[in-house]
Amino acid sequence: MEKKLLECVPNFSEGRDLKKIEQIADCFRAREGVRLLDYQTDADHNRSVITAIGEPERLRDAMVDSFAKAVELIDLTKQDGQHPRIGAVDVVPFVPFRNTTIEDADRIAKETAKAAGERLGVPCFLYEYSATAPHRENLADIRRGQYEGMAEKMKDRALWTPDFGPCRPHPTAGVTAVGARKILIAYNVNLNTPDLSIAKAIAKRVRYSNGGYRCVKAIGIMLKEKNMAQVSMNLTDYTVTAMYQAFEAVKTEAKRYGVSIVESEVVGMLPMQALADCAEYYLQIRDFRPEQILEYRLLEKEE
Amino acid sequence: MEKKLLECVPNFSEGRDLKKIEQIADCFRAREGVRLLDYQTDADHNRSVITAIGEPERLRDAMVDSFAKAVELIDLTKQDGQHPRIGAVDVVPFVPFRNTTIEDADRIAKETAKAAGERLGVPCFLYEYSATAPHRENLADIRRGQYEGMAEKMKDRALWTPDFGPCRPHPTAGVTAVGARKILIAYNVNLNTPDLSIAKAIAKRVRYSNGGYRCVKAIGIMLKEKNMAQVSMNLTDYTVTAMYQAFEAVKTEAKRYGVSIVESEVVGMLPMQALADCAEYYLQIRDFRPEQILEYRLLEKEE
Repeated sequence: MEKKLLECVPNFSEGRDLKKIEQIADCFRAREGVRLLDYQTDADHNRSVITAIGEPERLRDAMVDSFAKAVELIDLTKQDGQHPRIGAVDVVPFVPFRNTTIEDADRIAKETAKAAGERLGVPCFLYEYSATAPHRENLADIRRGQYEGMAEKMKDRALWTPDFGPCRPHPTAGVTAVGARKILIAYNVNLNTPDLSIAKAIAKRVRYSNGGYRCVKAIGIMLKEKNMAQVSMNLTDYTVTAMYQAFEAVKTEAKRYGVSIVESEVVGMLPMQALADCAEYYLQIRDFRPEQILEYRLLEKEE
Repeated sequence: MEKKLLECVPNFSEGRDLKKIEQIADCFRAREGVRLLDYQTDADHNRSVITAIGEPERLRDAMVDSFAKAVELIDLTKQDGQHPRIGAVDVVPFVPFRNTTIEDADRIAKETAKAAGERLGVPCFLYEYSATAPHRENLADIRRGQYEGMAEKMKDRALWTPDFGPCRPHPTAGVTAVGARKILIAYNVNLNTPDLSIAKAIAKRVRYSNGGYRCVKAIGIMLKEKNMAQVSMNLTDYTVTAMYQAFEAVKTEAKRYGVSIVESEVVGMLPMQALADCAEYYLQIRDFRPEQILEYRLLEKEE
């Protein structure tokens, strides 16, 4: 029986100071039984996304280490960026990866949130599958008001008492959402307009919460450096709503404003099947089997 | 140092009798140090394509075994199919795969052709990198006249004396082209017309030999079962001419006849990077890194 593996994709609210990000990433590199697969930083978003896999308990420990490091290094009173955020460690999703279930991910998420809340003094809200109330399932609902509005929001004890940690935000590290969820594709589409209201209007049309595709979450974001508006999406199940559907939907909505797509980007990991789905759609390939994909990395591992 | 590996992608002129194909495929399955990656049959083409990798000498021996089996099982006097063919074993390309060069592939190709010519009595023409004369480099030139015209064609001893084997075709197995080449994508595009002349005209426009894309070979083929004409292509270097370029070129040419594309198919293996290239083009993804691709098969091999 192969080892149990979970994936963790924490988002940190620092995308400009590479030295700080490196120190945070080192917490995953340093731990045996954990592997840092990828990390990506974005200066406009002022945010970094780390992807790591590991044995559940070891991954949890690496995550708690990185959490402590982020609390030490990131000061939200001085942080600004285009991406909504509530904490130095903004969100910590655990994802079943191999020989693990969503229940395994849920257990590790709760243990991580408990450690962060009790040892580091950062209030943690359990979200998605781990949420303890329906109004706290959706990350967007937890994030509403952002870091700056969180002290006021948490005064409503009935709705916003954290699952772990103190009842007020950490002064410099804010609060954090922690939870178990399924694999997700973070996918951004940049428009040839600096008009943020257009990106917001498109996001509203394509996302599920306003009548759009079933497995799409979307917000509009302004990229100052590029002077472009961006539709920033989470595809929560690419086997239900494919990347090309989200992309084409953004393109179709953009037309109404005479706006076109400049480029898109994938943040973090992308399952190979999602790539194959795109090629199959656009090239109209029929009867394609994953076994046909020649992956050199795969063969290199053998013998 | 990892083992040397070559790839072999022999094409056999039998695509309908699965029992025969299985017996041929078994020659690769049975040999230690050789792995059958994939095989694909096509009833219209009446043709099967096997993809195998292995240590050079062992792959050669498995190939010679399968050659003998095909000579035993396939009778070209009774074979018909839409795909041009010259022999029971139509073409045997060897491709450098890992820790091997085109020279390694060339040596093994020549040893295979020698064995087939001398032991099995099937005349073999070395083609592509292994060709012994410029007019024999291109597979299409060797294949011209097909099985039925080969006896007549070979009467021209100056041009068509085989590199190995007798100077006349094997009565039931014809002749075979054997050679070393680089990795190739076999890619077919089906049109919503039964007019073969349209597929032929499109093939002529997109292929290099008539002014088309640098690394595209193409022919028109009729699919009787589907009642569709097909543009059947070989993409000889997808890093130079990408799949989407070939696909879009066929689509653009088809428009002139009011014809559209019904579907496409990949025969045999497809390098993962070729898939990624398509997704990057159509989704306009920028700054995508292969490390972002999450390949479950890859991780399963570890530990």
